[in-house]
Amino acid sequence: MRLSRYFLPVLKETPSEAQIVSHRLMLRAGLIKQASAGIYSWLPFGYKVLRRIEQIVHEEQIRAGHLPMLMPTIQSADLWRESGRYDAYGAEMLRITDRHDRDMLFTPTAEELITDIFRAHVTSYKDLPLTMYQIQWKFRDEIRPRFGVMRGREFYMKDGYNFDLTKEDALHAYNRHLVSYLRTYERMGLQAIPMRADSGPIGGDDTHEFLVLAETGESEVFYDSEITDLRFGDREIDYDDRAQCQGVLEEFTSRYARTDETHDPELFAKIPAERQRVARGIEVGQIFYFGTKYSEPMGAMVDDGKGNRVPVHMGSHGIGVSRLVGAIIEASHDDKGIVWPEGVTPFHVGIVNLKQGDAACDGACEGLYKAFVAKGLEPLYDDREERAGAKFATMDLIGLPWRITVGPRGLGAGVVELTCRRTGASEELSPEAAVARVAGIYAPHM
Amino acid sequence: MRLSRYFLPVLKETPSEAQIVSHRLMLRAGLIKQASAGIYSWLPFGYKVLRRIEQIVHEEQIRAGHLPMLMPTIQSADLWRESGRYDAYGAEMLRITDRHDRDMLFTPTAEELITDIFRAHVTSYKDLPLTMYQIQWKFRDEIRPRFGVMRGREFYMKDGYNFDLTKEDALHAYNRHLVSYLRTYERMGLQAIPMRADSGPIGGDDTHEFLVLAETGESEVFYDSEITDLRFGDREIDYDDRAQCQGVLEEFTSRYARTDETHDPELFAKIPAERQRVARGIEVGQIFYFGTKYSEPMGAMVDDGKGNRVPVHMGSHGIGVSRLVGAIIEASHDDKGIVWPEGVTPFHVGIVNLKQGDAACDGACEGLYKAFVAKGLEPLYDDREERAGAKFATMDLIGLPWRITVGPRGLGAGVVELTCRRTGASEELSPEAAVARVAGIYAPHM
Repeated sequence: MRLSRYFLPVLKETPSEAQIVSHRLMLRAGLIKQASAGIYSWLPFGYKVLRRIEQIVHEEQIRAGHLPMLMPTIQSADLWRESGRYDAYGAEMLRITDRHDRDMLFTPTAEELITDIFRAHVTSYKDLPLTMYQIQWKFRDEIRPRFGVMRGREFYMKDGYNFDLTKEDALHAYNRHLVSYLRTYERMGLQAIPMRADSGPIGGDDTHEFLVLAETGESEVFYDSEITDLRFGDREIDYDDRAQCQGVLEEFTSRYARTDETHDPELFAKIPAERQRVARGIEVGQIFYFGTKYSEPMGAMVDDGKGNRVPVHMGSHGIGVSRLVGAIIEASHDDKGIVWPEGVTPFHVGIVNLKQGDAACDGACEGLYKAFVAKGLEPLYDDREERAGAKFATMDLIGLPWRITVGPRGLGAGVVELTCRRTGASEELSPEAAVARVAGIYAPHM
Repeated sequence: MRLSRYFLPVLKETPSEAQIVSHRLMLRAGLIKQASAGIYSWLPFGYKVLRRIEQIVHEEQIRAGHLPMLMPTIQSADLWRESGRYDAYGAEMLRITDRHDRDMLFTPTAEELITDIFRAHVTSYKDLPLTMYQIQWKFRDEIRPRFGVMRGREFYMKDGYNFDLTKEDALHAYNRHLVSYLRTYERMGLQAIPMRADSGPIGGDDTHEFLVLAETGESEVFYDSEITDLRFGDREIDYDDRAQCQGVLEEFTSRYARTDETHDPELFAKIPAERQRVARGIEVGQIFYFGTKYSEPMGAMVDDGKGNRVPVHMGSHGIGVSRLVGAIIEASHDDKGIVWPEGVTPFHVGIVNLKQGDAACDGACEGLYKAFVAKGLEPLYDDREERAGAKFATMDLIGLPWRITVGPRGLGAGVVELTCRRTGASEELSPEAAVARVAGIYAPHM
């Protein structure tokens, strides 16, 4: 993309309404624009990040054997009356009356609707196990929406639902989700720690939240510092292997890690003092096992192969896709702006032309541009008639991990400058070598 | 995908509520399930088609230089009061009151919100031309939703908006959209004819609808039969070349082609009688130029470089993404079921194992499966313990363009059977040759 043809409305001033750094940077770097309280438009640059995150979530869910599908945003109140949640949900549910005076709502979550789909079509244990998920817009009418997309009203969420014959099977589905979530967050450059959590309005006994450590997190968290040394890494995983998935669960949840809702000071005190950590975290996902909480009242039953009709065991599993954009920025920024992890960056590399209109500089930039595209990478080329300082400030603000600077002096010596956004370190190398270096850096992410 | 692990709830009986063939087949082949009147869940198989169509729309819009972004589904009524459309829109607008008693609505289209984004950020002709688009869920509270996803209430739409300094520039944007839409529909295996149309509530002078000919179409259409000989084909197009885009417009719109809303019997009578056609069509897209209809009342002005502040010239351009799934089926099916065009098929090839459990058959099917995946193709392998007849009926119903049948007799002679869904023609060839043939067929679509 050439910046002269892009829509990237960066703001020089810090918007006064934004209280946290991710909200400020998302406004300043032209990712979003508020449409109404807690409701945002995703401008082209922000939309690109959202799509990268969505794509990683899809890839990891499909890898885990889960089936993508999609449910509508507007649902009938009838199903929610069946489960008993219509009255229980409270004022956060956006309630709507259609032209025929039917009670509708903008879905905040979809346990009821997916259970209705299941009971209409599945009658036998032979069709189990089954896990389906969607990535769809949700609405929660927060009384005080704040922190930009971190606590907005309309938000993009991955919600998955497993249907299993037994509790044991459902806990394997739970474990598959835990493993796939660890992989998902790591690909985004995040360390998200699974913590024992409270089930809230979804219900259920077993639940973990995934929290990203950040000073601006809404939750207070308590953990054993050993947990931050754990990495999923690039280990092979067979999602059908129960023992292997259970092993990952145990590895990542055996040390103390809880939110304020489930914190147990006595247990915490038993950790060696030098490993006790109190910090703040941002919730970016949650997994639940809730058994037959929905299948029993809604009649989602299957033949168990032994002549009995039994309610299926279920769980639901969410990732806050739009919230993740904010969480990643909270975890990865500096005074100059955003620092995108390679896994989610909207463009892979920025090209800064120090002397627009100079034939050698223009030619070298065009050559780099084409070379990156040929490697399957997306460059953002700042081809505007602007001072070098303004171009650097924009590149720093929008946070592309790698920048190539092309100027007449360097070109005279046959080199361009490759700069790492995170460290600020620069080195001079030939244009060909720069393309090869950047392509090599992104190879694990392609 | 292995069918034993997929969720494909095919129905044996024809659902009584479905009046048209696409609705019947989408229910029978497990693409959708009704959630409420005019509102559908997209089951995994249907969701895959929807994503393929969405992907083609994205690719062709990006090729035309248009920028993807995303606006929220729930919008404030305030902007719609500014344009004067809040009261004018009528009962089809889903009106919502939030917990703070603010008037909100589920967006049926987004001219107001995109104009608001534009006026907040763009002040100079130097930032023009600009075209942004989104693919987002919309809602129109139809009084009698019918025909499944063809006339549902919640629907998925691509809506794009151009901002230009002059009418001439805006008409070039109009032409770019016409060209990109021709390419888009052809890639989906559809012939969609641009027809002079009526502008309706969007407003404006210049507008064309794109109609797919089908007996069940809602619109009566009148056209010169020469128009159905036109193909965009794989010609090269430079979207910056005004004359080239204008040439395509003229080629595709110079012959008579109108809907009942704009039909002119006198003009129609001048076409040679043997070329006059009266038929029915399904609208799958529409492009509009409406000038300053929104920019003037909403104050979307730019400096024109000559010291004047002038309202920008705009247009909006839509493709009915979810409706296209139905339209493609209306245009491409037979008595046995759906016949997917190669460009949108959810799986590229079906593999039918005639003797599940037979080591040679199972091994050959697994080998084919791996070979297709290695070629970047997605096979659907029917590995269920079912009679051959039931497997063939399912494959015919769900409409994958190519099927490979593996049986012990053929394997004994070193061959499998490759069958074309559209023609029913079969031929025997080695597994390796079958993979190469199918990969070759899809090469233009990859």
